[in-house]
Amino acid sequence: MDTWAPVDDGSGFTLACLPYGVAGGRVVVRIGDGVVALGDVLGDHQWRDAVEADSLNPVMTLGVDAWSEIRDRVTTFLTTSANERALTPVGSVELSLPFQVGDYVDFYSSIEHATHLGELFRPDAEPLLPNWRHLPVGYHGRSGTVVVSGTPVRRPNGLVLDGEAGVVRRPCARLDIELEVGFVVGAGSDEPIAPDEADRHVFGAVLVNDWSARDIQAFEYQPLGPFLGKSFLTSISAWVVPLAALAPFLVEPPEQEPVPDAALQATRPWAIDLGLSVDLNGATLTRNNFRGLYWTFAQQLAHMTSNGATTRTGDLFASGTVSGWNQGELGSLIEMKRPFLDDGDSIVLRGVCGEGANAVGFGEVEGTVVKA
Amino acid sequence: MDTWAPVDDGSGFTLACLPYGVAGGRVVVRIGDGVVALGDVLGDHQWRDAVEADSLNPVMTLGVDAWSEIRDRVTTFLTTSANERALTPVGSVELSLPFQVGDYVDFYSSIEHATHLGELFRPDAEPLLPNWRHLPVGYHGRSGTVVVSGTPVRRPNGLVLDGEAGVVRRPCARLDIELEVGFVVGAGSDEPIAPDEADRHVFGAVLVNDWSARDIQAFEYQPLGPFLGKSFLTSISAWVVPLAALAPFLVEPPEQEPVPDAALQATRPWAIDLGLSVDLNGATLTRNNFRGLYWTFAQQLAHMTSNGATTRTGDLFASGTVSGWNQGELGSLIEMKRPFLDDGDSIVLRGVCGEGANAVGFGEVEGTVVKA
Repeated sequence: MDTWAPVDDGSGFTLACLPYGVAGGRVVVRIGDGVVALGDVLGDHQWRDAVEADSLNPVMTLGVDAWSEIRDRVTTFLTTSANERALTPVGSVELSLPFQVGDYVDFYSSIEHATHLGELFRPDAEPLLPNWRHLPVGYHGRSGTVVVSGTPVRRPNGLVLDGEAGVVRRPCARLDIELEVGFVVGAGSDEPIAPDEADRHVFGAVLVNDWSARDIQAFEYQPLGPFLGKSFLTSISAWVVPLAALAPFLVEPPEQEPVPDAALQATRPWAIDLGLSVDLNGATLTRNNFRGLYWTFAQQLAHMTSNGATTRTGDLFASGTVSGWNQGELGSLIEMKRPFLDDGDSIVLRGVCGEGANAVGFGEVEGTVVKA
Repeated sequence: MDTWAPVDDGSGFTLACLPYGVAGGRVVVRIGDGVVALGDVLGDHQWRDAVEADSLNPVMTLGVDAWSEIRDRVTTFLTTSANERALTPVGSVELSLPFQVGDYVDFYSSIEHATHLGELFRPDAEPLLPNWRHLPVGYHGRSGTVVVSGTPVRRPNGLVLDGEAGVVRRPCARLDIELEVGFVVGAGSDEPIAPDEADRHVFGAVLVNDWSARDIQAFEYQPLGPFLGKSFLTSISAWVVPLAALAPFLVEPPEQEPVPDAALQATRPWAIDLGLSVDLNGATLTRNNFRGLYWTFAQQLAHMTSNGATTRTGDLFASGTVSGWNQGELGSLIEMKRPFLDDGDSIVLRGVCGEGANAVGFGEVEGTVVKA
């Protein structure tokens, strides 16, 4: 099966991908360097109203059977009679935040990252705290400051502990990134969600840059966790990659020791073979793979709901910083032991599964630092 | 000025109060034991659509001048020609969550509570951590599980550390309450909000019970803060008391030592002389006053936005547990060193400013524990 739409093999926006975004108050689907409006694909379908919206939420709330049918219709549209007029160059549209975020949860699920940070912050103790291997540690972040790729990143001001000067308010001097993958809930639930039910609830995935003001965070975070060191901004990619597109790239996760509690066990493979990278001002700092993450997104969702907490359309949960063990595989600057971000610095995170005509690309999430 | 509507002096729902709620998809105002629909008060006014809604958000987003005019019109309506037909008994309407919550932030601003918990958790160290007197410590909670008074409180399950049994999943055995006061943002901002600007942004206040699973929280909370120990449910009162009604009760807060950073200083008094109480199964456990809180809500809002984080209509921020120094003044069971909640236990928090015809009542927030 092939599409009449031109697809640059390098983009990852192939017929196997078909991610959703929002442009000009309409839901759009990307193919190659073009977009088609989902409303033009659906015609007079009953779901037409849901896709003529400034967010994906009305589509996501339709549920997994609708997601499947819509994806089939888009595939048919792009593989039958050519309709080049339906294709708009992506460069000529303005992409907005693809969905309205409900609750935003950020996890901490890379054993490499958690170990590196433990070694930095508690050099004389075991780097992993006693809970880490028993549950995916996480916390709630600020949903109102989740923004789309390309939004400038204003350096935050904050109270920091500055040696003999004591506590002073100043622009963050340790502005960092965190390379993450986020998952958006399409169909919420009033009940706990078992790991193997994840694909009935998760609509798709995005790239996330969890900008972090390390000096603000260091002073504020005890005992209730990160707050202003994170809440100023979180950037996500403009394209939501449907979970259906990721199905061929689901693989077994790393072995877990100890074996987790029954409510966190899955029988299906939920790790994702997804190559990630970080560029700073065009130079690649990092290449790693999401498949190595200790806790899968399915386990994260199960944990998040295991206490009876409900989920809603638009809830976003992110993986936590994805790091490997070695230099060149690290997802944050603090782990690289290199200088933090200067004003004017541009960070681009990218992600792609597979290659060639079967590639499934996440595109990028870009942010440029502007002065406080 | 007097109202034709019957007002039981004990209720606190006087002409001086006039809190807003939502019943049957309409915004309503409470007076005594009755409610009037705001749509019936406004008639053909341009804001009519905003008040025929299932949340206060459309009214709140109109801004402070509109809030003032609406309050004036309600006062006029209730003090001129009697219109008893416009009054519906509150017992005959079903009150829903009064607003759609944007982000939910929970602070930790009672020096008495923070000291008590520091003594419990870190008995050999200074009870207050080094940041506590420099900034109002807080964190983001789950907005999707904020519910209205009367919603049953299902005991959460979770992973806890149980002596020799190790890590086990079981129903929470240390289910606690937190007596708090919450503030809802009506008019958001893209800029930091100075403390003295709080009343241009905060629409009103509610009572909050921040249900807490102490055993789940104890195992999970390092290093990123409370998560599932809190996220299962947070209850708020059905009535939002307008900040305008609280103006006569604004008083000077306790002296702060050290003097806080300039961005957290106010010239106007922002503490609130508001009597609070906690009842367990009809027996009063606690009486205290919100005016003693170390950090005011105006300082909390200023802090929350000082890093550039934006605010939106519906953002809710809560005070943290309000405690005094003595038994009988404590806002959580863990501080009282008494048994935690059993299934079937009912907790009622109440709040009222002043007395008699000038009283401004918050009503109550009730929750009854049901089995896991």
